[in-house]
Amino acid sequence: MSAEPVRIAVDLLGGDHAPGVVVDGAIQAADADPQVLPVLVGPPDVAASLLADRGADGRFPVVAASQVVAMDEHPARAVRAKRDATVRVAARLVRDGEAAALVSAGSTGATMAAALFTFGRLAGVTRPPLAVVVAALEHPVVLLDTGATVEADANLLAQFAVAGAAYARVRFGLAQPRVGLLSVGAENCKGDPVRKEAHDAIAAVLADLPAEFVGNVEGGDVPLGGPADVVVTDGFTGNVLLKGLEGMLARIAGDSELRRAAGDLDPDSTGGGVLLGVDGVAVVGHGASSARAIASCIHLAAQVASRRTAIPHERDEDIAMARPWASS
Amino acid sequence: MSAEPVRIAVDLLGGDHAPGVVVDGAIQAADADPQVLPVLVGPPDVAASLLADRGADGRFPVVAASQVVAMDEHPARAVRAKRDATVRVAARLVRDGEAAALVSAGSTGATMAAALFTFGRLAGVTRPPLAVVVAALEHPVVLLDTGATVEADANLLAQFAVAGAAYARVRFGLAQPRVGLLSVGAENCKGDPVRKEAHDAIAAVLADLPAEFVGNVEGGDVPLGGPADVVVTDGFTGNVLLKGLEGMLARIAGDSELRRAAGDLDPDSTGGGVLLGVDGVAVVGHGASSARAIASCIHLAAQVASRRTAIPHERDEDIAMARPWASS
Repeated sequence: MSAEPVRIAVDLLGGDHAPGVVVDGAIQAADADPQVLPVLVGPPDVAASLLADRGADGRFPVVAASQVVAMDEHPARAVRAKRDATVRVAARLVRDGEAAALVSAGSTGATMAAALFTFGRLAGVTRPPLAVVVAALEHPVVLLDTGATVEADANLLAQFAVAGAAYARVRFGLAQPRVGLLSVGAENCKGDPVRKEAHDAIAAVLADLPAEFVGNVEGGDVPLGGPADVVVTDGFTGNVLLKGLEGMLARIAGDSELRRAAGDLDPDSTGGGVLLGVDGVAVVGHGASSARAIASCIHLAAQVASRRTAIPHERDEDIAMARPWASS
Repeated sequence: MSAEPVRIAVDLLGGDHAPGVVVDGAIQAADADPQVLPVLVGPPDVAASLLADRGADGRFPVVAASQVVAMDEHPARAVRAKRDATVRVAARLVRDGEAAALVSAGSTGATMAAALFTFGRLAGVTRPPLAVVVAALEHPVVLLDTGATVEADANLLAQFAVAGAAYARVRFGLAQPRVGLLSVGAENCKGDPVRKEAHDAIAAVLADLPAEFVGNVEGGDVPLGGPADVVVTDGFTGNVLLKGLEGMLARIAGDSELRRAAGDLDPDSTGGGVLLGVDGVAVVGHGASSARAIASCIHLAAQVASRRTAIPHERDEDIAMARPWASS
């Protein structure tokens, strides 16, 4: 049953604690699952020296790339200008079939730009959302967008609904994922004008797809896992909520007794976000990622990439736009 | 040192579990602090029967009011039409000095409308924000707006910054509260166009006040208590974040071991939101409030109302707009 290991292109220079924790994370990921082979994308001398320090000389392939996109640069402009940026080289490896997926803990905007330019959008997609799975009490919840696009109109929220439903179908094997619109009250009259308009747009677009629209959900339904498997929002609100939930876990971790009991709620163990709507797999980790968080991202990337060949390649555009790993 | 008890007008019909839990909460509040006297506002026969059931006949004054504002009504229109709505009668008691503050677990919009119509706005206020104190890891954090107004432009966010700083000064005795703007990254270039514009507006309005603007903060800074004592956002984002944090606590409470250890993080113990920018004290509880949550709201109302006489009555309009309990 042994197969070729899954090659994951890892951005050596992405993240607040790169490159050290990136190499540590790659080692942790490969130790935990020999079927995963991280490919380090960055300056070869840096990679070699870090691997040597850890007694791991030559353990992973290294692909040379020298430029980095800083957090305060305009992501799309910087990615366009820097042909040798690590995240862009990593995306090319995926496009060319030399890696199954890329992982970066650098700028979300830079990874999105690199994925858009290099993989291309799927049909019907204007802005690719970043989807994160929250380990809620009752069932996993796909939350999107968590920060790729800070403003969303009703049509974009409807796109996110389709993409999120497709992701939940494939990742969790749900035949009919329940999709909710994040708002300030369960009553469908609650919300700002964008939400009120999105309500009808989402109901219309999901009507012909294998998904059920359950209407408005609230912030608490994301950690609890209420009526929805997929929770749709703009990237501003989704990012604030996700970081708030992670902060609350860290708040709890400040208490040693709670820390012991929290176990599977540890945010480092949940992996990063998957960029949907592009024709390739890209996983975005937190800027502040620890080695364990990087390892989780690498496992998530391998898991999503391995489903790629198992997805029927429907030509239906409504479905196609949502398949993060669809072949074109 | 014994003084007259502080009379708190309590909306008997507000909340998903009213009127039973409201009476239970009033009893809990008075049992815990004999200096607090709940005044039940609602149908006298309902109040009398519930008190009798609990062996508390005649324990609290009752003020008659018969109408209720439902969650799916337009709050301002309903409050205007229903002169005998419980929340409106409660607000009149406060205006007329017969109660020091009101508490309602009914519709937030209805309580805001009743407070606006009956108490009036303070100078400079257009929309009163709802401020909630989050028991963060490092220090209490004032989060506002948490749902009174679902859309906010840069000027409104600047008003909220002033109001939140004044509240933090008085409630926590901070000489120079640190105010942060909730966004998707600590870098000040991060955020949607409203946030980018609000950045300058907040810096300008706080420049002449006893407060420090610390720039952007992130969702995790609310439960952790990072660089800011006051976190400013629109009511949509604030409501989603607050309910998410509360849901995460409930998520943890689902685990019995965590439940034991969580203790002071219990959302029921933290009280409700205080409506700032109106000339009277109104505390808004969750619709789903338990008896313990109602009791916490009553204590919070008494605590905030008791500070009212201790506040210097500055005539400075920039300050005045922010004093939730300022005399006019």
